[in-house]
Amino acid sequence: MKKISFEKTLKKIGKKIKVLGWVHSIREHKNFIFLDLRDEKDLILQIVLKKELAKRINLEDVVEIEGQVLKRPKGMVNPKIETGKIEIKAEKIRFLNYAKTLPFDLKNLKLSLPEYLNWFPIVLKNQKIKSIFKIQEKIVEGFRETSKKLGFFEFQSPIICAFSSEGGAEVFKIDYFSKEAFLAQSPQLYKQILVSSFGKVFCVTKAFRAEPSLTSRHLCEFTSLDCEIGFIETLEELLSICEKIIKGIFRKLEKEAKKELNLLKIELPKIPKRIPRIKLFEAGKIIFNQDNLEDLDPEKEEKICQYFKKKENSSFVFVTHFPIFKRPFYTLPDPNSPQFSLSFDLLFEGLEIVSGSLRIHKFEDLLESLKKRNLDPKNFQYYLLAFEYGMPPHGGFGLGLERLTKQILKLKNIREATFFVRDLKRIDLPLKENEKNN
Amino acid sequence: MKKISFEKTLKKIGKKIKVLGWVHSIREHKNFIFLDLRDEKDLILQIVLKKELAKRINLEDVVEIEGQVLKRPKGMVNPKIETGKIEIKAEKIRFLNYAKTLPFDLKNLKLSLPEYLNWFPIVLKNQKIKSIFKIQEKIVEGFRETSKKLGFFEFQSPIICAFSSEGGAEVFKIDYFSKEAFLAQSPQLYKQILVSSFGKVFCVTKAFRAEPSLTSRHLCEFTSLDCEIGFIETLEELLSICEKIIKGIFRKLEKEAKKELNLLKIELPKIPKRIPRIKLFEAGKIIFNQDNLEDLDPEKEEKICQYFKKKENSSFVFVTHFPIFKRPFYTLPDPNSPQFSLSFDLLFEGLEIVSGSLRIHKFEDLLESLKKRNLDPKNFQYYLLAFEYGMPPHGGFGLGLERLTKQILKLKNIREATFFVRDLKRIDLPLKENEKNN
Repeated sequence: MKKISFEKTLKKIGKKIKVLGWVHSIREHKNFIFLDLRDEKDLILQIVLKKELAKRINLEDVVEIEGQVLKRPKGMVNPKIETGKIEIKAEKIRFLNYAKTLPFDLKNLKLSLPEYLNWFPIVLKNQKIKSIFKIQEKIVEGFRETSKKLGFFEFQSPIICAFSSEGGAEVFKIDYFSKEAFLAQSPQLYKQILVSSFGKVFCVTKAFRAEPSLTSRHLCEFTSLDCEIGFIETLEELLSICEKIIKGIFRKLEKEAKKELNLLKIELPKIPKRIPRIKLFEAGKIIFNQDNLEDLDPEKEEKICQYFKKKENSSFVFVTHFPIFKRPFYTLPDPNSPQFSLSFDLLFEGLEIVSGSLRIHKFEDLLESLKKRNLDPKNFQYYLLAFEYGMPPHGGFGLGLERLTKQILKLKNIREATFFVRDLKRIDLPLKENEKNN
Repeated sequence: MKKISFEKTLKKIGKKIKVLGWVHSIREHKNFIFLDLRDEKDLILQIVLKKELAKRINLEDVVEIEGQVLKRPKGMVNPKIETGKIEIKAEKIRFLNYAKTLPFDLKNLKLSLPEYLNWFPIVLKNQKIKSIFKIQEKIVEGFRETSKKLGFFEFQSPIICAFSSEGGAEVFKIDYFSKEAFLAQSPQLYKQILVSSFGKVFCVTKAFRAEPSLTSRHLCEFTSLDCEIGFIETLEELLSICEKIIKGIFRKLEKEAKKELNLLKIELPKIPKRIPRIKLFEAGKIIFNQDNLEDLDPEKEEKICQYFKKKENSSFVFVTHFPIFKRPFYTLPDPNSPQFSLSFDLLFEGLEIVSGSLRIHKFEDLLESLKKRNLDPKNFQYYLLAFEYGMPPHGGFGLGLERLTKQILKLKNIREATFFVRDLKRIDLPLKENEKNN
């Protein structure tokens, strides 16, 4: 007999079938056991099993059931589940794998964050936890689909780099055949190179920061959704593309993550037709009564969001025109006041989720910018080539996947929005020397 | 005036328009210059420019043209290009960026491989070279779409690992906050962990091998298209899923990469309804007249493919049942003859492009397998958790994106199928100590 999917049992009333799944719950009666069987899509199927068929049965056992599909008696129909009108009268049960007794109640998780992370391979069987990552999958799909609709080319960005692209100390070193190499801090230089040939590009890639402290918003390895767009010359064009991408992502969630959002009791924010924009120094004046606001910290990000929530009922706000010295070497200065840059952060519910800018596209300007920051142009030789032979004016941005997931789902810690946590003290499990502290 | 795309000029005959692009070719006449303008999709638009408007113009300059769309005179229509019926009579030209004189003929590349790689940011402007990567993009899309149709969940696999997953020396070490960590050799352990909750998963991820020699088929950083499928118990089920994925990829190319394949003069191979399967030791007997064939080398892979090309007119062949000691610890032994494994390689035109197997799903068996190979179960603690609490029988495989691209396009060297080459002597450019040799 061939195994069938849970959905198909609905069309097999009266027939013999075979199904496979995890034992999701067990209710013992006098002569019978009622099992809920769970499949990989979290569908549930009720199995009625004579006690004599299974002497030992445990939650999360992986079993194969052969039996007959029966209509449930009227009073027993369960409208809450897709297969609630039927049940399987088991004739055979085969154990494909046994599970040990669970170390905690999987349906009602009450773990501290370190416990949660230590037990994560099992925690992930919880339907609500799975939903976080199903929603994350849809964010990525929404990003890709929107980028493709806009005509962007998708590429796989490299991870091993010969030099650190953004400068700073927060970079991981690799032993590369006894020479030094680095983990990519971002796909920045590579997406710019590709703009000179492909014009408009995007990638879903991993980025790495040797973040020397533990915070609720930083990871050492995270997923960056990156766009870089050629043939644009104004910050407004760039912001409007970023808006389209964000809206595309939320439309995707609305359409295809309803079930998961409902389960987590999350309502998606309305995105205004035009997300409010404010220059950083204006935000300083208006919101903080400060004349020379030069950068944002978590507290300021929160306050700016509260301000625009109140004023324009928007959960999103673009903060633009950061001081040029606060931004990386490739950022384009505002030609009207070069102490500012044509850059932006997109804040969402109090957290920066996107960072971007127009970029310097003229070779000589780029060279000057490198020198100003004491960066050696020799290290950027490969990258600079693209600027010598026809680089269009361009701009781009990177969106932090885990940050966006965290904010949409109102998670307390970014670690809850990551499959496999890498931070100062942990790669999956706590690092050896730190075991005692975690 | 708003810029428009090249396609839209066709509907604007007689009207004033603005377009942006790269100068693709320049033909000077007495009073006029004919320019071919190129956009990011490699569409070409003919521009007629009075000489006085542009005193200096260079190939690959990035320009904005304002002018009038005119029908070309009948004899001048060019049926080979999409916009061949029209031309733009330029009234203004604005230089958005200047290009230096190209160091070689971009339309007729004649570079050695090292030169090609050194100049790659510019080489990539060549339409044929771009086509390689457009086809590669479609391979990834075909893989994703087919996997999603089969109900697989997509995840982003981690790159930084606490331990080396496959053993062996070919692993890159990272300085992780003064502790040792490694670059993922494959997403293997993580995709297996996810099978215990998501059932069926896939990922597009980077994998790393510290390959100590230079060959035409190895890279130190490559893209792995990985599937792992729960609730399957036979090798035949696994092979049939792999077949579906391969067919899905080629269907995608047939539909959406026609233009690029034509440009490269590539005909896609026919995939037989059922790809031939042969056990390794049978291949040994039949093809090599050898009793105990234990592994394949490049020469043998070629010969097996030639054999099946002749015998069944198939460019593909599954070689199965490799000796268990030749495969990683997680490979499932054949219960009927445990010296063999339920594993396979898929060969395509003489090269292994996919490698996979059924996996051990019972905790005790896995523990035993680790110990047999002198691997410390403590290092696999996190991974093993998934096996203690309900791991379905499962199997999976990894497909090398660059290898598949190379084989489809009959490229000589895998480096031609990679955006950014990382090997023993090169990260983009030759590594410092080796500059003289390259």
